[in-house]
Amino acid sequence: MIVELLVIGNEILIGKTKDTNSNYMAKRITKYGHKIRRITAVGDELEDISSAMKEAISREPDMIITCGGLGPTFDDMTLQGIAQALNTELELNQLAYNSIKRSYEAAFRQGVLKLDGMTKEREKMAYLPKGSTPLPNKRGTAPGVKIKLSKILIFCLPGVPMEMKSMFKIVVLPILKEKKGKFMEKSFIFTGIGESHIAPYVTEVEERYPKLWIKTHPRLGEFGAEIEVSITAFNVENAEELADIAIEKLKKVVINLKGKIKQN
Amino acid sequence: MIVELLVIGNEILIGKTKDTNSNYMAKRITKYGHKIRRITAVGDELEDISSAMKEAISREPDMIITCGGLGPTFDDMTLQGIAQALNTELELNQLAYNSIKRSYEAAFRQGVLKLDGMTKEREKMAYLPKGSTPLPNKRGTAPGVKIKLSKILIFCLPGVPMEMKSMFKIVVLPILKEKKGKFMEKSFIFTGIGESHIAPYVTEVEERYPKLWIKTHPRLGEFGAEIEVSITAFNVENAEELADIAIEKLKKVVINLKGKIKQN
Repeated sequence: MIVELLVIGNEILIGKTKDTNSNYMAKRITKYGHKIRRITAVGDELEDISSAMKEAISREPDMIITCGGLGPTFDDMTLQGIAQALNTELELNQLAYNSIKRSYEAAFRQGVLKLDGMTKEREKMAYLPKGSTPLPNKRGTAPGVKIKLSKILIFCLPGVPMEMKSMFKIVVLPILKEKKGKFMEKSFIFTGIGESHIAPYVTEVEERYPKLWIKTHPRLGEFGAEIEVSITAFNVENAEELADIAIEKLKKVVINLKGKIKQN
Repeated sequence: MIVELLVIGNEILIGKTKDTNSNYMAKRITKYGHKIRRITAVGDELEDISSAMKEAISREPDMIITCGGLGPTFDDMTLQGIAQALNTELELNQLAYNSIKRSYEAAFRQGVLKLDGMTKEREKMAYLPKGSTPLPNKRGTAPGVKIKLSKILIFCLPGVPMEMKSMFKIVVLPILKEKKGKFMEKSFIFTGIGESHIAPYVTEVEERYPKLWIKTHPRLGEFGAEIEVSITAFNVENAEELADIAIEKLKKVVINLKGKIKQN
């Protein structure tokens, strides 16, 4: 599957909060052989959310996952933005309403929260784009949202990492596993020679094994101490075998050029 | 100024590398009163880079900063993607060529690199989109690029954090300072009451002070221990004064609702 991530929140754009959510998801999506094609971060502005969403839809990925902006305050406007992008409206979802109500009742009974009952702000979280399926939030109150738009599966997850992870594991991971592809990544690190020195040999090996994507990552720049060679492949049957051969070839090149293999 | 960031590299999309560069830049861009409107991450694919760039240009920000994909290997194709987006071509830039040549000569003399002279791969880094100004890379070899496109200033910075930071400080920061706006951020953390409980009061205060952007960030979800109230404003003359009043009002609300102020 081809996946896009849409991260929503001013706190990311002003640099106050590091977006750790997209890295968490990227690792797992890739692990199961799916490819993230784009990660977009926008602020809590209706137009920005709506246009980023429309653009993602127009690229026709198999899955779009949004993250953030589902909370009870009026400036949490992810769902409004998505409704606008889908040219539809928000409507009260009774399942979502009941689940939110139950969460707050339980939290009040346990003394976790001091305000009982539903309020306008709590109700707000139950207004989902028409045709949505609410997703239970085991770690919080704002339900997630699942929308099937023709061939595109849209998931809206909360931004609080604990809630996002819990919902990702419960609702997204099973789909990633079910539609599992094959992803392979192997790498090694060398020292002593520069990226530009090994570049023609990398090109040669890559031309020999066109199914592999071979990249060099200078860890401290061309003059720095270390360069990582990373080989990846999506959905290539004998990728590991090919990667092992390619790595052996490149290690020999490094040794011949009087560099040193630092780490497998 | 309105700024967009474009992060380029497969390693980000597969979750292998955390994109720390955009957070670094976001903090500094915001600090000087400029607003990041969007952060986009794409892989090392010509079409993806080119289309993300075209889209950013079509939104007409004042500045676009790209990061990554400037190195000597053939799959470092940021500049090719940008040339395609600008409907122009790459051409050998003599200034860039000379500076790259000097860097490698010095590195060879000092024994840092084992291969002397220019190679096809080293030359590659001197091919810039027509009309570019090369930016010196004090920490590496790949020069950065500056392009003035009508009212949009485009900077292409390296992806290696050390090189990016050095170039950002030297070439971008002075412009941020020169065109400095005013950014204000104040916050406090409270415990004991939920986000939805305080939400209507936040709305009230925000309606009273429409120039302030007041957001609540549950740090561990609605039932969690802490909620941060963050107040931000771009280019509001008496923002700090207004924020102080708003914060005092909200702290009183928290106390009245029997919550606790945890941290200023």
